[in-house]
This record gives sequence, C-alpha cells and structure tokens, in this order.
Amino acid sequence: MTQTRVEHDAFGPVDIPADRYWGAQTQRALAVFDIGTERFPECLVHAFGLHKMAAAAANLKCGELDQEIAQAIAAAAAEVRSGALDAHFPLTIWQTGSGTQTNMNANEVIANRANERLGEPLGARRPVHPNDHVNRSQSSNDSFPTVMHLSAVMELEDRLLPALAALRDSLASRATAFADILKLARTHLMDAVPTTLGRGFEGFAAQLGHSIGRVEAALPRLLMLPQGGTAAGTGLNAPPGFAEAFCAEASRLTGLPFRPNPCKVEGMAAHDALLELSGALNVIAASFIKIANDLRWMSSGPHCGLGELRMPDDGLTSSIMPGKRNPTIAEVMVQAGMQVAGNHVTVTMAAASGSFELNVAKPVLIFNVLQSIRVLADSARVVAERVVPGLEPDRDRLARQLDSPLLAATALNPHIGYDLAARIVKHARAQGMSAREAAVELGILRGEEYDRLVDLARMAHGMG
Amino acid sequence: MTQTRVEHDAFGPVDIPADRYWGAQTQRALAVFDIGTERFPECLVHAFGLHKMAAAAANLKCGELDQEIAQAIAAAAAEVRSGALDAHFPLTIWQTGSGTQTNMNANEVIANRANERLGEPLGARRPVHPNDHVNRSQSSNDSFPTVMHLSAVMELEDRLLPALAALRDSLASRATAFADILKLARTHLMDAVPTTLGRGFEGFAAQLGHSIGRVEAALPRLLMLPQGGTAAGTGLNAPPGFAEAFCAEASRLTGLPFRPNPCKVEGMAAHDALLELSGALNVIAASFIKIANDLRWMSSGPHCGLGELRMPDDGLTSSIMPGKRNPTIAEVMVQAGMQVAGNHVTVTMAAASGSFELNVAKPVLIFNVLQSIRVLADSARVVAERVVPGLEPDRDRLARQLDSPLLAATALNPHIGYDLAARIVKHARAQGMSAREAAVELGILRGEEYDRLVDLARMAHGMG
Amino acid sequence: MTQTRVEHDAFGPVDIPADRYWGAQTQRALAVFDIGTERFPECLVHAFGLHKMAAAAANLKCGELDQEIAQAIAAAAAEVRSGALDAHFPLTIWQTGSGTQTNMNANEVIANRANERLGEPLGARRPVHPNDHVNRSQSSNDSFPTVMHLSAVMELEDRLLPALAALRDSLASRATAFADILKLARTHLMDAVPTTLGRGFEGFAAQLGHSIGRVEAALPRLLMLPQGGTAAGTGLNAPPGFAEAFCAEASRLTGLPFRPNPCKVEGMAAHDALLELSGALNVIAASFIKIANDLRWMSSGPHCGLGELRMPDDGLTSSIMPGKRNPTIAEVMVQAGMQVAGNHVTVTMAAASGSFELNVAKPVLIFNVLQSIRVLADSARVVAERVVPGLEPDRDRLARQLDSPLLAATALNPHIGYDLAARIVKHARAQGMSAREAAVELGILRGEEYDRLVDLARMAHGMG
Amino acid sequence: MTQTRVEHDAFGPVDIPADRYWGAQTQRALAVFDIGTERFPECLVHAFGLHKMAAAAANLKCGELDQEIAQAIAAAAAEVRSGALDAHFPLTIWQTGSGTQTNMNANEVIANRANERLGEPLGARRPVHPNDHVNRSQSSNDSFPTVMHLSAVMELEDRLLPALAALRDSLASRATAFADILKLARTHLMDAVPTTLGRGFEGFAAQLGHSIGRVEAALPRLLMLPQGGTAAGTGLNAPPGFAEAFCAEASRLTGLPFRPNPCKVEGMAAHDALLELSGALNVIAASFIKIANDLRWMSSGPHCGLGELRMPDDGLTSSIMPGKRNPTIAEVMVQAGMQVAGNHVTVTMAAASGSFELNVAKPVLIFNVLQSIRVLADSARVVAERVVPGLEPDRDRLARQLDSPLLAATALNPHIGYDLAARIVKHARAQGMSAREAAVELGILRGEEYDRLVDLARMAHGMG
Repeated sequence: MTQTRVEHDAFGPVDIPADRYWGAQTQRALAVFDIGTERFPECLVHAFGLHKMAAAAANLKCGELDQEIAQAIAAAAAEVRSGALDAHFPLTIWQTGSGTQTNMNANEVIANRANERLGEPLGARRPVHPNDHVNRSQSSNDSFPTVMHLSAVMELEDRLLPALAALRDSLASRATAFADILKLARTHLMDAVPTTLGRGFEGFAAQLGHSIGRVEAALPRLLMLPQGGTAAGTGLNAPPGFAEAFCAEASRLTGLPFRPNPCKVEGMAAHDALLELSGALNVIAASFIKIANDLRWMSSGPHCGLGELRMPDDGLTSSIMPGKRNPTIAEVMVQAGMQVAGNHVTVTMAAASGSFELNVAKPVLIFNVLQSIRVLADSARVVAERVVPGLEPDRDRLARQLDSPLLAATALNPHIGYDLAARIVKHARAQGMSAREAAVELGILRGEEYDRLVDLARMAHGMG
Repeated sequence: MTQTRVEHDAFGPVDIPADRYWGAQTQRALAVFDIGTERFPECLVHAFGLHKMAAAAANLKCGELDQEIAQAIAAAAAEVRSGALDAHFPLTIWQTGSGTQTNMNANEVIANRANERLGEPLGARRPVHPNDHVNRSQSSNDSFPTVMHLSAVMELEDRLLPALAALRDSLASRATAFADILKLARTHLMDAVPTTLGRGFEGFAAQLGHSIGRVEAALPRLLMLPQGGTAAGTGLNAPPGFAEAFCAEASRLTGLPFRPNPCKVEGMAAHDALLELSGALNVIAASFIKIANDLRWMSSGPHCGLGELRMPDDGLTSSIMPGKRNPTIAEVMVQAGMQVAGNHVTVTMAAASGSFELNVAKPVLIFNVLQSIRVLADSARVVAERVVPGLEPDRDRLARQLDSPLLAATALNPHIGYDLAARIVKHARAQGMSAREAAVELGILRGEEYDRLVDLARMAHGMG
Repeated sequence: MTQTRVEHDAFGPVDIPADRYWGAQTQRALAVFDIGTERFPECLVHAFGLHKMAAAAANLKCGELDQEIAQAIAAAAAEVRSGALDAHFPLTIWQTGSGTQTNMNANEVIANRANERLGEPLGARRPVHPNDHVNRSQSSNDSFPTVMHLSAVMELEDRLLPALAALRDSLASRATAFADILKLARTHLMDAVPTTLGRGFEGFAAQLGHSIGRVEAALPRLLMLPQGGTAAGTGLNAPPGFAEAFCAEASRLTGLPFRPNPCKVEGMAAHDALLELSGALNVIAASFIKIANDLRWMSSGPHCGLGELRMPDDGLTSSIMPGKRNPTIAEVMVQAGMQVAGNHVTVTMAAASGSFELNVAKPVLIFNVLQSIRVLADSARVVAERVVPGLEPDRDRLARQLDSPLLAATALNPHIGYDLAARIVKHARAQGMSAREAAVELGILRGEEYDRLVDLARMAHGMG
Repeated sequence: MTQTRVEHDAFGPVDIPADRYWGAQTQRALAVFDIGTERFPECLVHAFGLHKMAAAAANLKCGELDQEIAQAIAAAAAEVRSGALDAHFPLTIWQTGSGTQTNMNANEVIANRANERLGEPLGARRPVHPNDHVNRSQSSNDSFPTVMHLSAVMELEDRLLPALAALRDSLASRATAFADILKLARTHLMDAVPTTLGRGFEGFAAQLGHSIGRVEAALPRLLMLPQGGTAAGTGLNAPPGFAEAFCAEASRLTGLPFRPNPCKVEGMAAHDALLELSGALNVIAASFIKIANDLRWMSSGPHCGLGELRMPDDGLTSSIMPGKRNPTIAEVMVQAGMQVAGNHVTVTMAAASGSFELNVAKPVLIFNVLQSIRVLADSARVVAERVVPGLEPDRDRLARQLDSPLLAATALNPHIGYDLAARIVKHARAQGMSAREAAVELGILRGEEYDRLVDLARMAHGMG
C-alpha cells in the first residue's frame, strides 16, 4: 500500500502518493492518459527546471514576485534542472497537445518543493502556488514551446555538434592518412577509374562539415523564444519586459544567446523553427546512411566481398557462425538514420497541424526532435571513437583492383576520341584481352604510346 | 561498488554485475553500444521467452537436446516469458541489425538461469550452453525475425484488435443513438445540406471496422515464421522437422496458428509482412487523425466554435485560463496518428534495406512497429472508454443550423434545374433574403410549392 | 488568334476556344488555377467516360432521364472513355479538393459533345445540360471518389497485376534454373555459409507473389463505390436503386465486380481504401528496392565488384567512360520504389485530412496513387522483359567463393560445440591458415573427420 | 510512317526520326526505358543549354576546343536554353540514376544542331562530336549534378523567392489592415482570450519571412557546383582551371554567384545540398498547410461555420449545390503542401542512397525537388494574387464573439489568483451566467471592480 496525501485543485481533491512532489493536475493526468510508455527525455525535464528559474528571476525583476517566493521557486527549479527530481515527472508524452500537463507537473513539483523548503507541507499551495507563482506571467502556450527550444538548443550544443565535429575530424584524419592510397572508383557500383582511398573520406568529412553548418544555420531561429506570449500569443498577464528579462536570465544560465521572438504567435502556433532543425537532422540522417553503407561495403568480405577496409574488432559475433565479425556499429548508424528520417515525417505532420493561435502537437513534435538529436549524436560519437580510427586498408587488395584491364580507356578519350576508345574496350571485352593489347592489336596505339597516355596514379589524381 | 563475476566467451573474460543473468556477449554489447535510451518493449522480451520455450520443445522432439536440458531451458524461458526477468535485458535497440545481441542476451540469461536451477553457478556455460543448447538449431538470422512476428501478432491479438473493436462499437452505438438528430453537413468546411449526426459516427465506425479487416488481412503472412532457416535461410544445423515442431509448440502455447514460412529466406532477407502490417497501422493512423479532428471541431467552442457536441470533462485545464476545457484525449489521438505515420516511414526504409540473405535493420523496424501498435491500441481504448460514451449533442445548436437560408437549394435541382436553383441562391445572397423568399420574388416558385419541395428532414435522409 | 465562342454558366458568360468541348466552369478553372503542370493520367479521364456511361444507364433505368438524352450522354461518354477526347481535359490536378472542376469538365465535354451529336451548337446546354443531365443524380462528392476507385482498380487489373505476375514468374524461372548453383550467402554483407544462387531468386519471387496477394486483399474495399451518396453522403437527389444500377452497369462494362459502399459517407469523407492500396504499393516499392539492389550488387564489377551475375547489355553507356556498362534498368527500379514511398506519404497526409462529410485532398491523393501504380507496373514489366531473362551467372567466380577458408566453421557447431568452433576460426584467422588446418593444428579434429563433417554442397542445401 | 535517318554510336547503327536532333544513345534509351510519363520540367532542359554554353566557353578558355567548335556548341546550346528545342528531349525521368541519358540527349541534340549550323548533316558526328566536343572535359557524373544545382537555383530565384515574398507581403498588409479588429483567440480550438485579427496574419507573414531566410540559407551550398570532377570526382580529362572557368561563365550568364565545390566527390556522391533545400521546402509546405487551414476555417460557413472572413468569389461552384462557394485555392495550397512533404521523403531516400563515388538516384531526386519548387511557387503566387487581397472580415461576427461569458476570467488571475478565478468560471458554467455575474454572486468582486479589471480590448493587446 502506497501512502497517499490529498491535494486540491480547482476541480476538487485528489489522492497523491505521499512521497511525490507532483500535485493534483499531474495525478489526474496520470489517470486520464493511460497510454504508451514514451517519456520525455531527461533533458526536457531539466530544461523545465532552467525555464522556471529564468521565469522566477524575470518575475522578480518585473516586480511580479517578491524575493522570498522568487528565491524559493528558483531553488526548487534548480533541483529540477539538476536531475534530482526526475522521478517526480511521471507522465508520458501522450497528453494534451500544448504540453500543459507537463508544464503543470513542473509547476506543481516546484511549488511543493519550494513550500517544503519554506517549511510548509506538500499540497499547501502557499506561500508558493503552482499557477499564481511558479507559472506567474506564463501560460503553457508560451512556456512549453520555450522549453522545446531550450532543450533542443542545449542538446545540439551539448551533444550533437561536438559529436558531429568529432566524426568529421576522425574522417578527415583518415582522408589525410589515405590520401596516397590508390583504389578503384566505382560509379553505378561498376569499375570506373582510379581514385584515392582518401578522396572518399574527404567526401564524408565534407558532408559532416556542411551539416554542422546546417545545424548552425537553424540556430538563430531556435534561439528566438516565444516566452512572453502567454495565452494565445497576446502577452496577457505578462508584465512589460518579461520576455526580455526571461531571455537574459536563460542566456546567463546557459551561456547561449536566447532572445525574444518578436512575433510570439509565430512561435506557438507554428513550429517551423523546429521543423527546419528536423530537416537539418534529416540531412545528417541521409549522410549517415550513405557513409555507413560505404564503410560496410568497403569492409565486406572478408574474402568474397570488396575487402578494401577492415573494421576494428568489437568482440561481438554471430550466435551460430563462430568468430564471424559483422559491421555492427555501422548498422546502428544506418538504423539511426532511418529512425530520424521517419521522425522527421512525424515532425512535419505535427508542425503542419497548428490551428489558429496554437499548435497542439507539441509533445509528439519535441519528443521526435529530441530523439533524433540524441540518436544521431550518440551514434556519431561511437562511430568516431570505435570505428573510424581503427579502419585498416587492405593495400594489396586495393592495388590489385587497378589491374582491371579496361580501367584505362577513359584516359584515352582526349587523345584518340571517345569512339576509338570505345572500340578498344569493345574489342578487349570480346577477346578477353587488356585494353593495351586491344589498342595495339587494332593498330590504334603502339604499346609505348599507350603507356605514356595511361598512368593510373596520375589518373587517380585527376591528371590523366 | 557493484559486485561482479567473470564470464568467458569465445573472445575471453568479461566482468559482469554479479546479480545479473546476462553473459559476456551482452556485457560486451553494453560497452560497445552506448547509444540512445530506446529499449525493446517488454512484449518483445516476453516473446523471446516464448520463442526459446518453443525451440527447446522442438529440439527435444527432434532429438537435438535431452530431456533434462530441454526442460531446464523451457523453465528458464518461461520465466522470461512471464516478465520476471525483464531487468536482465539491458540493451537498447541500437545494436547490430540482425538483433543478434538481444538474441544472445536471451540465450545467456536463459542458460545462466537454467544452470542455476540445475545447481550450477552463473557463467558455468554447462550443462546448458547459451549457443549449443539455448540457441540449438537456431541462428539470430531466423530467431530474431521469428520473435518479431511473434511479438507483433500477440500485440495485435492482445491489444490492438480488442481496442479497435471497442472503439468501433462505441462509435457505432452513438451512430444509433444519434440517428435521428438532424445536423448540417459540411463539404469543404462550408454549409452543404442537412444530414444526421448519426451518419458521421456511422462513417467513423465503418472506418474502424474496415481497418480491423485490414489488420486481419495481414495476419496470414505474419503467422508464417522463418524459424528453421538458421544461417542465411539455409537451414544449416537445424534438423528436419524443426520448423514444424517449433510452430506447433508456439501455436500450442499461444493458441495462434503459426506455421513455417515455406521460403525461409523471404522471411529474413525481407520484412514485407511487417511492412504490410505497418501499412495497415498507417491507415488506422489516418483514420484516427480524421476522426479525432472531427470530434475536436464538433466540440469546439463552447461559444464561438461549432459547438455541436460536448466532450466529457476530464478534470484537466489550462495553466493560465481557469476552468478552460480542452479536447485533451482527442489531441492524443491525433498525435498518436502522426507518430505512427512517421514510424511507417522508418519501417519502409528499414524494410527496403535488406541485402542478399539478410535484412539488417531488424531492431529499428520492429521497435517502430511495436510502438505503433501500442500507441494506437492504447489511445483507441482510452477514446472508447473516456470520450465517445460521454459525447453529448447540443440539440438546440444543431437545430438552429438548419435555419441556414441557402440550405435548401440543392433539393430544388431535380424540379427546376440547376441553373434556376443557382439563380435563386445568387439572388438570395445578394439581397440578404432566404431561398424561399428569393424563389418567390423571382417568380420561380410559389411559397407552397417551395415548401412542398423542400423538407429538411427528408433531405437529411436522402429523400429530398 | 484562337477562335472563341461564348458559354454561360450560373455566373455569367465566358469565352472558350471554339474547338474545345469544355464549358464555362472548366474555362474559369483554367484561369483560377494557373498552378503547376501535373495532369491526371489518361486512365482517370477515361474512367470518367466509363463513369458517365454508367450514370446515364442508371438514370435511364431509374426513370431520371429519357432514352434520347441518356443515349446521347452514353455515346459522348464512350468517346471520353476511348481516349478520343483527351485533349478536352486541360486542367491540372491543382484544383479544388473534391475534384469538382474535373467532374464539371467531364459534364461539360459530354454535354457539348452529346448536344453536337444531336445537332445543337456547343454551349447550348440543351437538350443535354451538364448538371441536370450528365451529372444527374450525382454530386462531385460521390462521382469523383467513384472515379478514383474505378481508375485505380482498372490500372491494377490492366497494368500492375499482370506486370507483377510477369516479374514473379521470370524470377521464379531463374530460381529453378539456378537451383543447383552453389554460391556464398552473405549476412551483414559478410561471408556467411554456402547457399544456392536459386534460393535468392526464390525469395524474390516469393516477395512478388505475396504482394500480388496484398493488392488482391485491398481489392474488395476498392470495389465498393460511394456512388449514390451525392451531396455529403446523404443520397439527396439520387433515386432509389441508383447506386445499384450504377454499379451493375460499371461491372457490365468492365467485367469487374463493383458494388455500392453500404456507408457512403465513409467512401467520400475518408479514403482509407486507397490509402490501404498505397500501403500495398509501398510494400512493393520496398521489395523493388531490395531486389534491384541485390541484382546491382551481384552484377557489380565486372572485375572489382562481386561479379556473380552479368546483366544483359542494353546498348547504353557512359558519356566519358567508353564502353562502360551500368545496371541502368535496375537503377530505375530503385528510383521507382523511392517515388512510390514518397507518394505514399502524400497519400497518407491526404487521407488523414478529411473534415466531416468530405475529404478535400482527392486530386492530389489519386494523382499519387495512379502514378505509383503506373511506375511500379512499367518498371516491373521492363525488368521482367529486359533484365531477368538475360541474367548470366559467372559460375567460376561463384565456385571460387566457396574456397573461403572460414566458411565451414558453422557446420562444426553441432559436432564440437560453438566454443571450439570459434577457437578454430580465431586460430585460423590469426595464423592465416584454413579452418581445416587450424582444426588439425589445434588437435580438435583430424583431417578426415573435418572432411566428413564439412560438405559445402550439403551445407548449401541445409543438410550440413 | 515517320521518316528516319540512321545514326551510329559506339554500339552500331540506330534509326532515328528524321526531324529530331537527338542521336543514337537517346534513341536507344527511348526503347529501353518504356516506363511512366514523367518528364523533367522544361527548366532542367533549359539549364542543360546553359550548362553546355558554359562548358563550351570553359573549354575554349582552357584550350580544349578551338573557337569555331566552341562557338557552334554555344550557339546550339543557347537554343536549348531558350526552349526552342524542348521537343527534342523525349526521355522520361525513368533512366539510369546518373542522368546519363539526358546528358547524352543534350550532347547529341547540341552536336547535331551545331553541325547543322556548320552545314553538316545530322548524324555526322563531325566537326562537332557529342562526346569529344559537347561533353569535352565533362562526365555525366559532374554535368548532371551541376545541372541539378543550376536548375534548382534558377527556379528558386525566378519563381519561388518572388512568390514567397509576394505572399508574405500580401499577408503582412492584411496584418496591418486588421491590426485593430478584435477577435477571439482559440487554443485547442476552444475559446481562449481576446486577440486581434491582425495578429494571426502577422504570424503567417512571419512564417513566410523566416522561410525565405531558410531558402536563402541553403543557397550557398547550392551555388557550389561539382563541375570539374568528371568521372567519379577525379577530375580526369578536365584541364586545370576548367571548374573555375565554367563557374565564371555560368555566373556571367545568370548573374548568380556559382562557384566550384572544393570537394567534387561530395557534390556527386551525395546530394545533401538538395536534400537541405528540400527540407526548407518541407517547412514551407507545413506553413502552407497551417495557413491555408486557418483561412479555410476562418472563412467556414457562411452561416454555420466560424464565418470570420469571407474569401473572394472565384466563380467556381458545386456540381450539385447551386451557388455554393468553396475555398478552392486554399485547398490547392493544402494539397501542394502534402505533395511537397511526400516528395521530400522521396528526396530523402534518394539522397541517402549514394554508393561510393556516385549517387545514382539523381533523376528522381531532382524531379521531385523541381516539382516541389514549382508547386509551392505557383500556389503561393495565386494565393497572394487571388485570395489574400480579397479577404473580408465579418466585423459583426467578430465583435459578437467577444460576448462569450467566460472569456474574461484569465484577466482576473493576477488580481484574485487562479483558484478564485477558476471558481468563478465553474460557478458561471454551472449556473449558466456570465463571469461577471458569478464573480458578484460569489462575493469575490463587485461589479465595478470586475469592469475595471476586465477590458477586452486591453486584453487583446496583452495589456490585461
């Protein structure tokens, strides 16, 4: 039997587990929304702590709260921010589309904890009241989307951008290391021309580098917060200067340049800024799939695949094929990309669904954005740490590829023309001979001419 | 400091928390895949218990395991099936694309627990060995996709189909109750013709009814299991009759008619059957969005919206607008639909990504399918229980709608022709008069003729 | 200077090109919707011809039209059905969401052409009136979705199902032809165990076969037509028996068992049946991507890829690499799959967007469904005709794959246990020796024992 | 019987319609790819003209072509750019994934036309050869993706950005015009608080304004061209300085600052820049759906909907309901958004599918991107021209909304606290009285106090 206490809200009394800080609206929501298991990630709960700290400071500055109350709220909110009260946020994401229940959960936890710090029992609703004080000058309409932005930006800064940079750098360092290793380039999966192993990694690194730029390009619009819009973007009940004071404090606490969205209703009726971010994440997802598949294929074999690279051993193997090594982490990278691409569709539909002054698909929208960030960041980090540095080229195999008899024909184009070059290839293929042999047999080139025109290393560096 | 024990696998020794049943491959995977927080839902872990029970029985029947070992495995697997060992499955879904690590986790937990039941210490690997006995006649290649099918089918049977039936029935009962309540039909959101309130609910119920049929249409292909294909669909190391014996036992344990997929490689290299199911879930998602939006709009207001229905009060309200009631559960229904539609894209990409004999996007694929089932089922249940039965029509408001002066013109078509009917409407709109007045003023119809031709109740029932 | 004539509708006079059969509403729509270039495919225009033929017959049967008018309509509609009047349907799909403008286009073209056949000038609106006669007992609300179903079903029957069957059969015949050719199976792209070349094609054929079943499973709900629902599903202005008579005539004309949707509003407010179909097409898309990628990879090289198959030459080559052959058609198959998967998302969003009695995303929805059908059907046909029959295995290369030194270890499991087998592999890999050599050197097996246990051909057939 | 001529390519002779400029590779492709009906939009064909002009200039500058040949190519290419030769590009998009056939189509048309200008017969392949001269220093590998970028950037500049700006400006001008019209704000579709009609339009305009920024943010990466990479990004056969000269000429011809992609392989193996753009288009799509739905709902009725706005009459009406006006163009805006969101998924899958040095889903990728641009641009333009300027608020109806008895409660929060305000609302709702009456009856406020605290106009402007 769990001990309970009784709390009251505007609708009457509710039984609540005695050791939980949440209040009546949260408890009612638990009963109503008996749906699914998906929780907001901790970073969103922590961002609510940060948010209520900044709101308390702004309310103090604007004269809406006195110092004792504001300090008590800020102290309790700091505990939420720190993660110490995670267990007091029991709701799933399956709640009303404005995120009101999680906002009220934050209001109730902070009010109860603040009152407790001030020597009052849980449920007292005084001196700190969840709506009148913790939620002062706010509405879920502006607070929840503000927390969406706060949590997304912090996850980008703390997780994704560093992980992308690490992955880019690890790939770039292999591009340098492999710059002089010749290999066969493939187009349409077919043998094409000589290139270098480094060039492919240069391409990967460039993809990551550009996507860092894409995320950064989305930041200015994410740093604009709708706080201050209150109900329906009107600003009702928020004192002049509240939005500015809030952003100043949020910036002080995080070191990030948050600023008020000049058009509050845009920031709560639509979530284009988060959809834009999701679009950037979707690009990263596509890059991950491309890069991981290339690594998987280059490492395929070991005997009957391409076998150009060896992935580092991770100690994991098959349940039936003893000692078999698989590109496990690269497969995670692919799957992460697929998850993010699907999440992006959910985010698109959610972002498109706003009506009038409010978008009411906020919980599902931010849940998917934060999941995408986390999964991309973590898989980038693990790939950068565990896969890329240990990749080993099989130099013998790479060298043998360049013996391909038809590889050189492209280099002949500028000298003998496309049609003669094609004739050489056709003849060589039909007769099972090398391009050199065919060129000579057809009387198109002498052997020494051929050798002068065809230099695989020069071709690989684009100096054919 | 957590106590640890040492286990060995083919790669050497590993430290494992002493109170955990998992073994070396699971522990290695924990270190490698430090990615994300998403776990397989419990139903998949339980399905692994069921799976290993059926495999033990089949191995016994085929003479691959002796009775003592088979019974010890079955007993330990039954504990997994029951949920008692959920805490021993620590991996996230971010693992190799064949689900090998979770298969090995099951093998290791069951082997350790079986050995413990037989008086041996954890890590003994005898008499029950995770690969040689628990995984006997199996590969992750066939076991994991089999568990994917098992868990999906059981979730459909246990959760989704009952919830859809409940929602369909609750909607159908309102269709009956509202069959004679006239209301305005809207096309393009614009006033159209009289209809009945019941007809819309009939449509909703028909949507749900058809989608039950859609899920059932996907079942035959989901009931086909690739078990017996072992490595790469070859059947290597599985004795003759294993697949049949496995399916017989799985059917006995569940009461569901599982049967061997005659083309094993189809069931492990592709996951078309699960993608087909996801497509059916996607239809349900679209229906949910449509139905929930209709309910939201019909209940909008209370004063300045359509206000045709009142939703039951759920005790939840706004953080700033005291006493405001919102269609909270309907918003969950919409968000659930969006999640499922996005998951479907992930599933599509995952299903399309197989190479040769194996699809290696299994974990992300089944994670999304099971999430979709759960979220649809739970939200259907809550809507059926908490929203639909309490919907109350506002009969006054519905009746007043039918006063719309232009509503009747359509009924005149067959009698006076479209062009004259249009002339009446145009005149009425320009003069701000009713259609009846315009018809008379234009000399097209006398008042009593008009009244004979236009009977809103008859129109509503299609008897204009 | 184009010659014009003047037509009138309820809103006044409009100039129309003199040689066009369309009327005022179509002409107005052309001016309003100056958007995009996407047209409905001809099959939808032809289905409108069929539709108006069936409607004329039903109106005749129900006594709503006299014989002369009905016959004139049917004759003109037959011309639309035949394709003779395609040039008289100028609108793009970017029109009102009920498809009203294309319905009116059909009504106007047929009325004008019928009047012309009866000796009246274009624009006469008598004796055949576009609304009063051609559209008699109908609304765009029920006619357009009926045409959506008609055109989709006919395209499935005429194009997709035959093409899928042809592709399945061509793949199945290669499965038979290749049944005894051993090859290496790959899981995770890594060398796994011996299998047969035929088995993979068996899997492909099974995928296609199942998807034929999926399309057929969607047919019953597609064969249900909302015709008879008229405005908003009320049936207003349609005589009793109209829906039945319409379906009977449509069935007679096509040989397909169309029947009335018992819940008309379900068939016009939602398009779940078409979304269900799109889900089946999406499965086919995923299968296409999987199959085409496997074919591309197996044919990769010719020297430095897997080189297991040769694709037939299609005479197309690179603009810079003379004589290079690429898997061009397989790349179309992949791209077709991607198009269909994206179209499916559009269809999902469109299907979810209905409001009350009408879904108003009909044009974009059916455009995408019909494009998906066509692209899948055409690419299946071309692959079945031009690619599959000409695939040639490289038997030498396939045979050489089986020399892989580690391939056999899996077969040892049941005899010596997983751990010893893993030890052999580990030793072989470290020492660069074969599994047989390692087994002997480690004293685990004698050479003759090894040879008895490991038989690649038996392994490939699952009899390891 | 069409007259034909014979042309030869490296594979032999081919019959070609005598009046067509295309050559053997195009004709072969027509026979092979008998798939679908989708063509590249004219803008892509024209961009190929521009591309070959720039290539000819660069080849001249680099000494790869002499003046006569370069000028002949440039002149013929200018005809392609102008649209005069559109009829000579017969292929659909369903071709090899590098776009080689359309590149060869351009090479062949330009070679033939150039030779014709120089007095040679079609098919002469001299003095201008399609590969050796028109395609000089190029590969499809770099030319086709360069054309993808060229066409996308020009469509953005010529169509999309002006249309978005026009729509933003038209919305902003209504925001100003409606700045003082009070209306009810809705959250969760429920009556919330007073706001102004202008504020919503301000939000719409802000959405558009931000999305112009999003498109512009994608431009720098789109302006980077992979030209010069030739086969597989190696630069083989392209002289030093070719990329720079090409970009200089393309910039001169268009006035747009194109520049060489420093990492060629990134620009041909991946298409992240186009996927990024598609992500920005997807944001616009979501905005369109949101805005169009708001306009549709605000204009709903005219009697039984919200009826806050009247849309301008477009002369289009129902086929059965005479004189009915529907929000036709707004429905196009919604459907356009859905098309773009689906296209985006196709683009995502295409972009993720590159292998090694080449992405081979180029045709489907660019087809979808260009369709998205066009559909968004055209619908934005039509909405800006035909819908927004004619929107008329129904001032009476808007004013009556503010009589809602519960509207004022939110303004009381800061004065009497949330719980007392909620008590007033609860009492008012239960007793069917106004909030003012309830406040007085409950003794919470006197009438004059209430009137002082509640001022709807001040509330609407956030000065509650």
